[in-house]
Amino acid sequence: MRLSIPESEIKSRQSKFFSSLQEKGIDGAILFSVTDIFYLTGFNFRPSERPIAFFIDPRENTHLLIPHLEKEHAEEYAYVQNVHYYPEYPGLRHPMDYLKKSLMDAGFQNKVIGLDIEGYSSPKGYQGSKVRDLIDAQQFISIKGWVEGFRQIKSNNEIELIKESCRWGNLAHRLLHKYSKVGLSEIEISGRATLEATTTMIETLGKEFLPYGEPTHAFYRGQIGQHSYFPHSQTQNLILKKGDNVVSQSESTVWGYRSELERTMFVGEVSKEQEKYYRLVQQAQKIAVDSIKPGQPFSFVEKNVRDFYKENNVEHLTRHHTGHNIGLLNHEAPFFDLGDERVMQPGMVATVEPALYVENIGGFRNSDTILITDDGFEFLTYYPRDLESLIIP
Amino acid sequence: MRLSIPESEIKSRQSKFFSSLQEKGIDGAILFSVTDIFYLTGFNFRPSERPIAFFIDPRENTHLLIPHLEKEHAEEYAYVQNVHYYPEYPGLRHPMDYLKKSLMDAGFQNKVIGLDIEGYSSPKGYQGSKVRDLIDAQQFISIKGWVEGFRQIKSNNEIELIKESCRWGNLAHRLLHKYSKVGLSEIEISGRATLEATTTMIETLGKEFLPYGEPTHAFYRGQIGQHSYFPHSQTQNLILKKGDNVVSQSESTVWGYRSELERTMFVGEVSKEQEKYYRLVQQAQKIAVDSIKPGQPFSFVEKNVRDFYKENNVEHLTRHHTGHNIGLLNHEAPFFDLGDERVMQPGMVATVEPALYVENIGGFRNSDTILITDDGFEFLTYYPRDLESLIIP
Repeated sequence: MRLSIPESEIKSRQSKFFSSLQEKGIDGAILFSVTDIFYLTGFNFRPSERPIAFFIDPRENTHLLIPHLEKEHAEEYAYVQNVHYYPEYPGLRHPMDYLKKSLMDAGFQNKVIGLDIEGYSSPKGYQGSKVRDLIDAQQFISIKGWVEGFRQIKSNNEIELIKESCRWGNLAHRLLHKYSKVGLSEIEISGRATLEATTTMIETLGKEFLPYGEPTHAFYRGQIGQHSYFPHSQTQNLILKKGDNVVSQSESTVWGYRSELERTMFVGEVSKEQEKYYRLVQQAQKIAVDSIKPGQPFSFVEKNVRDFYKENNVEHLTRHHTGHNIGLLNHEAPFFDLGDERVMQPGMVATVEPALYVENIGGFRNSDTILITDDGFEFLTYYPRDLESLIIP
Repeated sequence: MRLSIPESEIKSRQSKFFSSLQEKGIDGAILFSVTDIFYLTGFNFRPSERPIAFFIDPRENTHLLIPHLEKEHAEEYAYVQNVHYYPEYPGLRHPMDYLKKSLMDAGFQNKVIGLDIEGYSSPKGYQGSKVRDLIDAQQFISIKGWVEGFRQIKSNNEIELIKESCRWGNLAHRLLHKYSKVGLSEIEISGRATLEATTTMIETLGKEFLPYGEPTHAFYRGQIGQHSYFPHSQTQNLILKKGDNVVSQSESTVWGYRSELERTMFVGEVSKEQEKYYRLVQQAQKIAVDSIKPGQPFSFVEKNVRDFYKENNVEHLTRHHTGHNIGLLNHEAPFFDLGDERVMQPGMVATVEPALYVENIGGFRNSDTILITDDGFEFLTYYPRDLESLIIP
């Protein structure tokens, strides 16, 4: 069972990237984004004060610059031709000075050079020069967002990893549901469900499985009772009470690829008012997915959801757009947003989560991960959505 | 029991920041770093595609710009005078356009303006203008690293939160040790210890406790047997075998403040060679902490460790510097590094973790979190360090 992207696909990503540089007259490129570097090399870097750089030189050779402590790790896992390393950051000689030498040796001097950002950046105490202070170029061209753009269309292998992630997110969510009881705290419920799902996941997938993230995790993040009114609330150590509505979430990571599953659930009983808002978000999600059509802009989905909410006089209870793409990061562009005119394309994977937030009652949100297909969409997450299935006994 | 930084201290951080701007002739400042914003406001933001900004205007009024979905959250938790919000990102009107209006209204136009970075940045699909495209300034001055600099010296309240974090990291580590057995996988051991420690932590601290991070977590991250040779290895789903040496870690977060505890442990038995390397890192850590003297540069500690390793012909087995400061982030500057000439000061909190990595045997590293005091250091983590206590039966 393959649980990673094969070398051949990583190599073809590199070729595609290099061709896109050539089309724009760019001789070589330097990238600092760790997510894009993982995408192009298969090397998963844990950022700290120590910088990383990927570069592809004018002869299409690929390079990584990493700290010495990652040398063996990179040699084993990175699909690149050259691994360069520096002893340490800040070190007696700055890592950017090593980058300078490697770039010179690779023929970057006086060339047309693509850059995702001007230099490595990290909040963890890193300081260093910009690339333009290291070498002379005929021209520096910003290629910010290019690799992010390639990442938007998922390959079959990527879709398989996301589906695998959905499977384990479903188990974690099922266990969260099962272990949720009046009087228990969110952290306890979440911990128990996460541990059991994770253990089952790793025993099922075996030792070839590399999560590159949390294997699986189900949680409430403070979205319990009235506190679920805060859409981005933080874990609060809250206790479940009868009559609460809650918003649950589960995630899973398989070789870096992610999915998202969220449900509104009801502790013990459902009031008429809770039911009213739940039916509205349920219908809104149906309207959203039925609006997914390749060739239409992302804004089309959001407009249809908004129109439905307006008709039902609840538009003032929305707090965020209907969804976002997902992949190696939990939020990626484009967005199901009124202002996003980018076009839906087959192979994109996104969340659909139109929500309502009602003061003194709480939040109502189901989030599913979907695949945009040639003629519409396919649900990748499959936890029940009917109200009766979402009651916590 | 207080488990947060009081409003008065947050306010005095803001005053100190404003005074430092005035001393340099800066009228007002705009910050985008989420860690610095938390430090200056107490508002813990979960970054997504949606931008955030903090600004302090020429009349010393404090402001936050946040997405609508964070409005109530910010109004409840942020110690600022003004909360501005935009509907959504990208939205029909870009969030930076809202920032522009708020900055104009707050009197930033044609002033001397401090900036931590040129504009908001996020890998999660965000694109937007730089501040210089929004308003005219008499001058833009980079204040990158200023707040990070203030964060280096911890107050008594911050030290108390870090000590609280050490306490729960110790419990999680104790349980990791207790549940580690030959034949079990790292994820299962880690999950069980983490769940029990977390549940105990939240039941002990009660509902006032806001972690703003993982409450506590103990794990191996793939550092088991020969694989512990990779200092920054990733979770591998490995099984403990008799004779392995392992590197364990535990962390805990209390209102955003962190600590680090790591130990080399031995499964069942210790070979002569394992013992030799363990004694060396144990002695190196003693040399490191004895070298901690306020007024000396950070490099002094690393030099003494290196000299000791050289004398014992193991310097080639080092892979990283001896440690880093810690606080709201798991790695902060300055570093115990040959190239870090910054000076040790009382109130700094750092890790001390001189390590050795031996091919075909694995890694040897103990990490403790220490406080730099007026005349030396104090251990904040207190898990046993003697070899006999670190055997997994």
